[in-house]
Amino acid sequence: MGEGAIRVSLRRGAPGGVEPAGDDALVVEEPLEIRLDGRPLAVLMRTPGRDLDLVAGFLATEGVIDGLDDLAGLAPCADPARPNAQNVVLATLASGVRAAPARFERARREMFAASSCGLCGKASIDRVFQHAPPLEAPFVLEPAFVCALPGRLRATQRLFDATGGLHGAALFTREGALIEAAEDVGRHNAVDKVIGARLRADAFPLDDHALVVSSRAGFEVVQKALVARVGAVVAVGAASSLADQLARAAGLSLYSFVRGDRFNFHG
Amino acid sequence: MGEGAIRVSLRRGAPGGVEPAGDDALVVEEPLEIRLDGRPLAVLMRTPGRDLDLVAGFLATEGVIDGLDDLAGLAPCADPARPNAQNVVLATLASGVRAAPARFERARREMFAASSCGLCGKASIDRVFQHAPPLEAPFVLEPAFVCALPGRLRATQRLFDATGGLHGAALFTREGALIEAAEDVGRHNAVDKVIGARLRADAFPLDDHALVVSSRAGFEVVQKALVARVGAVVAVGAASSLADQLARAAGLSLYSFVRGDRFNFHG
Repeated sequence: MGEGAIRVSLRRGAPGGVEPAGDDALVVEEPLEIRLDGRPLAVLMRTPGRDLDLVAGFLATEGVIDGLDDLAGLAPCADPARPNAQNVVLATLASGVRAAPARFERARREMFAASSCGLCGKASIDRVFQHAPPLEAPFVLEPAFVCALPGRLRATQRLFDATGGLHGAALFTREGALIEAAEDVGRHNAVDKVIGARLRADAFPLDDHALVVSSRAGFEVVQKALVARVGAVVAVGAASSLADQLARAAGLSLYSFVRGDRFNFHG
Repeated sequence: MGEGAIRVSLRRGAPGGVEPAGDDALVVEEPLEIRLDGRPLAVLMRTPGRDLDLVAGFLATEGVIDGLDDLAGLAPCADPARPNAQNVVLATLASGVRAAPARFERARREMFAASSCGLCGKASIDRVFQHAPPLEAPFVLEPAFVCALPGRLRATQRLFDATGGLHGAALFTREGALIEAAEDVGRHNAVDKVIGARLRADAFPLDDHALVVSSRAGFEVVQKALVARVGAVVAVGAASSLADQLARAAGLSLYSFVRGDRFNFHG
């Protein structure tokens, strides 16, 4: 099964009754603690298996680091005295990172509480632009390519085949090459895993790449794509009002409800 | 359209090309700041419209309050000097609430960072049990009733009809009465809205109620149900490993993949 799924005993039901137990696969959900320079930064509920990709992507798309050079270390916790060390990742900022303490505090603050000047959709967009300005060139995909992407993402989702309970995300080049794919119980985590894998491969920024997600396109998915400089987001599900507004303001091509041979283009 | 959806100009695409602009409805996503006793507690990305229900439910299901008596005040921000006051809700704890500062700190800490004793699925479950012990009596639903619930939830989702982009949650009694339903761009928010509405109606705890969600059943959905003392969770989507483990440990009846006339029962 791999570490992303476990088998459990379940009972099948139908209107007439519940049958004796059989067994089935469930997606694994476990907490992961991210510690930055020794201090707890966040806890994510994630599907184990690609934790370093997830943490690298999370730190980048939340604005804690600007690139791979900002990371001096990224490793699983190996302290035998620490219980559940497999659920802890230790990240260390490079000594040259400017304002490291301020970045830490800003990241915690932005994840948990508002700026003091009030908050609304526009302020949320302005805050994203502070560390990820709008894109310089439009990145428009061929319609037939857009229609093919959800099927190509779905073909990578082996844990979904087993459990039916995961979100998928994948990166494609403009020429149609599949670069990276990931699954997770959390849709933002799946995005951070593919972005983090490219960051760790020192392939940042991701200009001329399209991000495909099996889920809806909310504000945070578009934010994460923009920070990585991804030019297009293709979502199987619907887009929210704020995702639409951020994509238009950022010059990012947003495709939603990509199903069968139809889609919406937000522009 | 109501305040939960807006109309925007979109272009329809197909493999052969992109058509001229039409318009369509998108679900509204806007940040909401929760201030507790004057201090920022959390920011939720939510669909506006039932903010007080959402905040009441959030405070209860995250363990900040134990019941309606713990709240001295719950109101929209009405400060004309504060920009975007419509996106701020002010909550005030009753003066008799024991350890109010500690509850505030605990809530922030548990939302953002781990306990110092390491974290894993079991520790997450133990932490939920600290303020919501296992249920005392099993609450098993008739299989035919389980199969009917997703359709009855779906019939309440008017914003979904317009936008295709929302999650739904509803509470039903054992006898089959629909008590409360809500929609939101965030699946946890939809759950908090229905639970918060019952809290504000002073109808806590929700023994003998079933919670139905249009989404998957992850750990947090089961946690929120358990804190409200809901006896059964019925999910259209898959359950995660940790949701399965928490439901079994708590004696809460969990039904997943409820589609057509089939479902899984976790027990």
